[in-house]
Amino acid sequence: MATQIEIEEYLSQLPGWQIEVVSGVSRLQKTYKFKNFEQALQFTNKIGAVAEQENHHPAILTEWGKVTVSWWTHKIGGLHMNDFIMAAKTDAIS
Amino acid sequence: MATQIEIEEYLSQLPGWQIEVVSGVSRLQKTYKFKNFEQALQFTNKIGAVAEQENHHPAILTEWGKVTVSWWTHKIGGLHMNDFIMAAKTDAIS
Repeated sequence: MATQIEIEEYLSQLPGWQIEVVSGVSRLQKTYKFKNFEQALQFTNKIGAVAEQENHHPAILTEWGKVTVSWWTHKIGGLHMNDFIMAAKTDAIS
Repeated sequence: MATQIEIEEYLSQLPGWQIEVVSGVSRLQKTYKFKNFEQALQFTNKIGAVAEQENHHPAILTEWGKVTVSWWTHKIGGLHMNDFIMAAKTDAIS
């Protein structure tokens, strides 16, 4: 599990990403804006491809004109270095 | 806007669908289970196709092994008959 100091350090390198606590579990979350539903869904599929490739899967909320991605590590009930890497990869394909 | 009596009547015909209130707005919500992430994402895309066809768009939360769909009508800030029809169409493609 990443320490609070590590989390703050990693976060400072990931613009727009925030910590969201759901049922006591920290998640790394960001919302991306799009012109319509179709483009939002296309991005969801791009994230899905990366998730399958890395075998690490986020929660992806697809809505008209926006996609909210949440990364966390179920096994440890929190954030691992890998979640921050996946966040960076998500930015890279956005 | 659908009345409370209409909502209860429509809901009784849609197994598994529930009312979820988010920021004071009622949404029609159901979670579908799948074997893995890939199948969940496939269902998300099927819902997306129906949404585009009908020009009415839900919120779709895609996770490993499950998809949570929420229908509501932004314009009226609540539930319209059409949301229940979209719920039935979602069941039909599941």
